[in-house]
Amino acid sequence: MTRPKLAVIFYSTYGTNHQIAEAAAAAATEAGAEVRLRRVAETAPEDVVKGQAAWAEQLEKMADIPVATPEDMAWADAYFFSAPTRFGVVASQMRAFIDTLGPVWQDGKLAGKAATATTSAMNAHGGQEATLLTLYPTFMHWGSILVPPGYTDQAIFEAGGNPYGYSAKAGEFDDKGRAAVAHQARLLVEIAGKLIA
Amino acid sequence: MTRPKLAVIFYSTYGTNHQIAEAAAAAATEAGAEVRLRRVAETAPEDVVKGQAAWAEQLEKMADIPVATPEDMAWADAYFFSAPTRFGVVASQMRAFIDTLGPVWQDGKLAGKAATATTSAMNAHGGQEATLLTLYPTFMHWGSILVPPGYTDQAIFEAGGNPYGYSAKAGEFDDKGRAAVAHQARLLVEIAGKLIA
Amino acid sequence: MTRPKLAVIFYSTYGTNHQIAEAAAAAATEAGAEVRLRRVAETAPEDVVKGQAAWAEQLEKMADIPVATPEDMAWADAYFFSAPTRFGVVASQMRAFIDTLGPVWQDGKLAGKAATATTSAMNAHGGQEATLLTLYPTFMHWGSILVPPGYTDQAIFEAGGNPYGYSAKAGEFDDKGRAAVAHQARLLVEIAGKLIA
Amino acid sequence: MTRPKLAVIFYSTYGTNHQIAEAAAAAATEAGAEVRLRRVAETAPEDVVKGQAAWAEQLEKMADIPVATPEDMAWADAYFFSAPTRFGVVASQMRAFIDTLGPVWQDGKLAGKAATATTSAMNAHGGQEATLLTLYPTFMHWGSILVPPGYTDQAIFEAGGNPYGYSAKAGEFDDKGRAAVAHQARLLVEIAGKLIA
Repeated sequence: MTRPKLAVIFYSTYGTNHQIAEAAAAAATEAGAEVRLRRVAETAPEDVVKGQAAWAEQLEKMADIPVATPEDMAWADAYFFSAPTRFGVVASQMRAFIDTLGPVWQDGKLAGKAATATTSAMNAHGGQEATLLTLYPTFMHWGSILVPPGYTDQAIFEAGGNPYGYSAKAGEFDDKGRAAVAHQARLLVEIAGKLIA
Repeated sequence: MTRPKLAVIFYSTYGTNHQIAEAAAAAATEAGAEVRLRRVAETAPEDVVKGQAAWAEQLEKMADIPVATPEDMAWADAYFFSAPTRFGVVASQMRAFIDTLGPVWQDGKLAGKAATATTSAMNAHGGQEATLLTLYPTFMHWGSILVPPGYTDQAIFEAGGNPYGYSAKAGEFDDKGRAAVAHQARLLVEIAGKLIA
Repeated sequence: MTRPKLAVIFYSTYGTNHQIAEAAAAAATEAGAEVRLRRVAETAPEDVVKGQAAWAEQLEKMADIPVATPEDMAWADAYFFSAPTRFGVVASQMRAFIDTLGPVWQDGKLAGKAATATTSAMNAHGGQEATLLTLYPTFMHWGSILVPPGYTDQAIFEAGGNPYGYSAKAGEFDDKGRAAVAHQARLLVEIAGKLIA
Repeated sequence: MTRPKLAVIFYSTYGTNHQIAEAAAAAATEAGAEVRLRRVAETAPEDVVKGQAAWAEQLEKMADIPVATPEDMAWADAYFFSAPTRFGVVASQMRAFIDTLGPVWQDGKLAGKAATATTSAMNAHGGQEATLLTLYPTFMHWGSILVPPGYTDQAIFEAGGNPYGYSAKAGEFDDKGRAAVAHQARLLVEIAGKLIA
């Protein structure tokens, strides 16, 4: 099998989606992918971030992770996205990154890539499904091949049974979540591997 | 206040959405609405229904509830829908009823009515949000005024925090759910009352 | 390349989605797929169908096309769906077919199959996107690999630029539509071929 | 009737959504509303904006329009949103504004407000529906009362028949669009007026 190139693109304010992204990157690497773990740039004003200790600390914690660029998207064979909900849609930091992809999209560099996503929300039903369902149309504009997990593994049921992609309650990413994310990442790598074979 | 007329339209295979609908009807009546509780017709073949004891029993249990008609929709000032998910969309029995509404819709009899919905699913994230989000576009075609609960009451947080409408885990409609449904029904009656004032 | 097995599953009241399905089947066959063209069963009461000459004639016209079964879904490596909108969601006839798929889904027979969809509506923006976006969550429940066309071919732009799947104005399926459908069908066959290789 | 307070909140890169917002503001004022026309802050880097003459000119053209604040959202009884699509979701500038609304939302200042939206896209089916359907869940989180136009006026059919809200082809906002927007704005004002009566 040709080794698929995977871009794990995430945004995290307090750490949950950072943890998910690290788990996905680790599982994908183990499954044979070449992985780039990338955080999208923070777009909130510096004083807002610094005004919340937990937010500033998380940003500090991610300081060594490269910031995602359009080139990462062009490079990759597959995408694993993770970002928290903001009223049912991924955080605007992620949308800001997405909005920079016009040129690579026009060059056809996003088409035909395998793609999947995960998210987090404060409430059990406070956007855990919606946030993925309002993100996937974007992947469709790119001509992505979508790889939602469905119910293809027992780990999915145990982590809440989200067929669109794993979703965490904010701050509560646990071993069950880890297993579901690992499955989703391995599935993505498997499909990406077939697409580029 | 003019007394709003509310149609509670539901489909239930094993009872969860029947319970939700009864709870909504009771709360709406108490809030001053004139309520018609209506089940949509079963469209599954008779032998399929009879082949599952729990399904047949539920149908028997609802025998006295009138079957929903387009006239109920034309009559009402407001709609409270409840139906279980089938792969992220309301059960086809509900869609079959909806598909009979072309003529009343064309006559403008559905426009401007307040509308809200609830659902149920097997898994925590197995369509509890999606089923409502794939139903609401239909209400928009009708020109409904949508009344999702948002986070307008503590009961919503306690029942899982679904801002699109209450959602139950199948077979687990409980007191917390009852409180959330009662709030959603009262909110609908309140808004409908204002719209017809 | 292993020859992928494709199920073209459609519902048509007045002919538009029948034409789309035939076009998809022809293009897929030419692209090397083994194709089963299947219409879902009509569920409207016989007197309703007979009461509309155009509807009855279309049903007559499709008399030789086998009715879709769950076994067709288990058999196939890929799905091409086509059905008209009813208030932003596929016609209930299609949902009724989907609701019979519980057992094959539970047996894991739907997972990992490539899937795409097309639709039609009366108005330019009267569900041409929504109908696909409210169908795709269902495919995600199955664990399908979604193959939306995006903007991967000039034919898509010329047919209205729907990245979620081709959509026709009811009764107006033309050569531009044919080209877009052919592209979408070929893309599906190509991806399905890679997935089963 | 108490005079409803309407916030017209928009983002525009090249002018289409600016025109829509002005048309909505004018129609709402004429219908008796007290209107605040507000553009959301530009978040793209200054050199990117300046690098595109048409973009810089449009920003200059809007220099006198106040930038939207959370206080405008708390003040208003109703919201009319307009923003172009970016891959099926409103431009990230709009999402960035939305992401600042956490505090007013938590204070309950967004609940119960009437809300509607319009959009624009490059292609006929390139997000004209999707962009509205991926925005409305956000309004639901707020506890908004959604006022989509449905098919409540002939002007809607003539402008493309989008029941979720008016949508323009980018750069082609015309008299038919103007009539549809005016209807949507008047409907919003009418409903808002009833809600605050």
